[in-house]
Amino acid sequence: MNEPLFVIPLWADLSAVALGGLQGALFASGFRGQRRLDLLGVAIIGIVMGMGGGLIRDLLLNVTPTTLQSNWYLITAVAAALLGMLLATILERVSWLIVGLDALVIGLFGAFGTSKALYLGLPEVPAIFVGVAAAVGGGILRDVLMGLPVAIMHVGSLYAVAAGAGCVVLTVSFSLGAPLTAAAISAVAVTTVIRLLAVVFDISLPEQRALYRRKVAVETSAIAVVGGTRAADNGDAGATG
Amino acid sequence: MNEPLFVIPLWADLSAVALGGLQGALFASGFRGQRRLDLLGVAIIGIVMGMGGGLIRDLLLNVTPTTLQSNWYLITAVAAALLGMLLATILERVSWLIVGLDALVIGLFGAFGTSKALYLGLPEVPAIFVGVAAAVGGGILRDVLMGLPVAIMHVGSLYAVAAGAGCVVLTVSFSLGAPLTAAAISAVAVTTVIRLLAVVFDISLPEQRALYRRKVAVETSAIAVVGGTRAADNGDAGATG
Amino acid sequence: MNEPLFVIPLWADLSAVALGGLQGALFASGFRGQRRLDLLGVAIIGIVMGMGGGLIRDLLLNVTPTTLQSNWYLITAVAAALLGMLLATILERVSWLIVGLDALVIGLFGAFGTSKALYLGLPEVPAIFVGVAAAVGGGILRDVLMGLPVAIMHVGSLYAVAAGAGCVVLTVSFSLGAPLTAAAISAVAVTTVIRLLAVVFDISLPEQRALYRRKVAVETSAIAVVGGTRAADNGDAGATG
Repeated sequence: MNEPLFVIPLWADLSAVALGGLQGALFASGFRGQRRLDLLGVAIIGIVMGMGGGLIRDLLLNVTPTTLQSNWYLITAVAAALLGMLLATILERVSWLIVGLDALVIGLFGAFGTSKALYLGLPEVPAIFVGVAAAVGGGILRDVLMGLPVAIMHVGSLYAVAAGAGCVVLTVSFSLGAPLTAAAISAVAVTTVIRLLAVVFDISLPEQRALYRRKVAVETSAIAVVGGTRAADNGDAGATG
Repeated sequence: MNEPLFVIPLWADLSAVALGGLQGALFASGFRGQRRLDLLGVAIIGIVMGMGGGLIRDLLLNVTPTTLQSNWYLITAVAAALLGMLLATILERVSWLIVGLDALVIGLFGAFGTSKALYLGLPEVPAIFVGVAAAVGGGILRDVLMGLPVAIMHVGSLYAVAAGAGCVVLTVSFSLGAPLTAAAISAVAVTTVIRLLAVVFDISLPEQRALYRRKVAVETSAIAVVGGTRAADNGDAGATG
Repeated sequence: MNEPLFVIPLWADLSAVALGGLQGALFASGFRGQRRLDLLGVAIIGIVMGMGGGLIRDLLLNVTPTTLQSNWYLITAVAAALLGMLLATILERVSWLIVGLDALVIGLFGAFGTSKALYLGLPEVPAIFVGVAAAVGGGILRDVLMGLPVAIMHVGSLYAVAAGAGCVVLTVSFSLGAPLTAAAISAVAVTTVIRLLAVVFDISLPEQRALYRRKVAVETSAIAVVGGTRAADNGDAGATG
């Protein structure tokens, strides 16, 4: 199967890759497990978070990965990851920015994935699946590479649900005759808003909480027993610290 | 490479997907680690167990994944998983049914994988490999997503051996001129019977044992320290319970 | 996309597969975690290390996997792994051989990956990425299957850097007009030498050290807190029990 003529505008695609890489670096530098990541590790996480979604999408669609058709994807992902690492201390204070970024990235990867799948003629349900897989796939790869529990299986419902909602909106409006670009923009908006609302109405930040919980899980996996209370204390300290 | 005209009958393919999804849900609900799965987690495991084998097969063959060509695969996998979750308490009592189901699923995925590979012109050995990968691939993905030790590496020999035997039978009889459908049916029978015999002559249920062992491993990974003896006791209790 | 006419000579390709399988078996038999691998486990690790790089390369390039086009790849990988298991006790004494072998394998997979990518018309940066992914991909799959921390994320910088350097040399010299074969041979040499120099000037063997560190991490993950001595006791008890 040859690469079809469906083209996500390069600037939009690269923006998603850059935001993904940035988010990956912030995640990685926020992670204080037993093992620290070196520069190369951060670059890898940036590539995985910036390009993983697109790679998984194209593997599922059996087309040549778009992210490997141009030098810019890898350069952008790595540059964004290194920038993210440099800015980590500043950006961690503005955690609403990280959450917003994250919500936008999920929305973008989901919308790009479902759009491309519909364009290639996939039926509605698999098109939604491809979008969700593209939205959450980078995070799954990241967790597997970093040896963390896969977030989506335990705490990530909000992710997949937000991504799924956007992809459903895209698919339905496209089926009803809306132009693909308009449908995709609505999908990004829907996913981002749902994700942000979920965060807001959950009072604290689920992703941060998840991150801490996972960090704590890693750190205390051995210690948990020594005393249930101590483990809990530790967790709370982490959350408020 | 374009999708060839090789078509596994949709009802047969969907049956395998449904059985896989059901089996996945039973596994997931039987799993009582530190972290419980939510509804979405069960649906994901259902998709992975019902569609993972077919996806891996088609990725290895470099053809467009059949499971994404129709809405029914995802709907079937998710519906079977949710049904499995509802019926878990009932079905867990009839554990021979779960084991039988499991054996049948391995047989079906193995036979479909090897058939498709042979049909596409792959040589014998890789055709067998693709069948085995399709048979055990869903379980590997499940273990990685759930953060469990990959069963096939430690306790799963019987799985891979049973799947391999069926795929060898298929390949040999096809090479000797048997029609593909007949060869595939024999392969399913061979795999299922070997797997069931293995379970019967192992007196207790290896997969159950494995499951317990893994559950115990997860549960006691932190507790092991409190005392080597207690950990061992716990393990034995689990194995005999 | 049809398989292009680019052909790595079968003997060269099979040599890399054999060396990879051998190296995989040595790694697996050197690994003494809580769970030992059986014969099948060693064969799987051999396949993963011998064929994983080529499979990942061809998935990224969206071409039919070369390693599944002939019976010889799987036969070679499994035979090499079983041979490696038999020779493990002898070969472990000549650890410089293992390190040399390993360096050569990384060089070969990296050079084959980048060559094929360039031949298929990929731009420079993704061609280097494909080479590095092919060089380190087998090891990542191995670590995930064996439930080990993914080496490349924590201690494997030297691997990826050595592979990357070779792939850069290949790409640059090819862009400057050097014939692909000559460029590939230089790349293998560069990667192997860098990797060996890194090992030599690091005084001890990083890969061995990493292996030990990982083994220790696995064995003591639960026990770390209470006390090193008890931990060791517990481990021994488990092994003899």
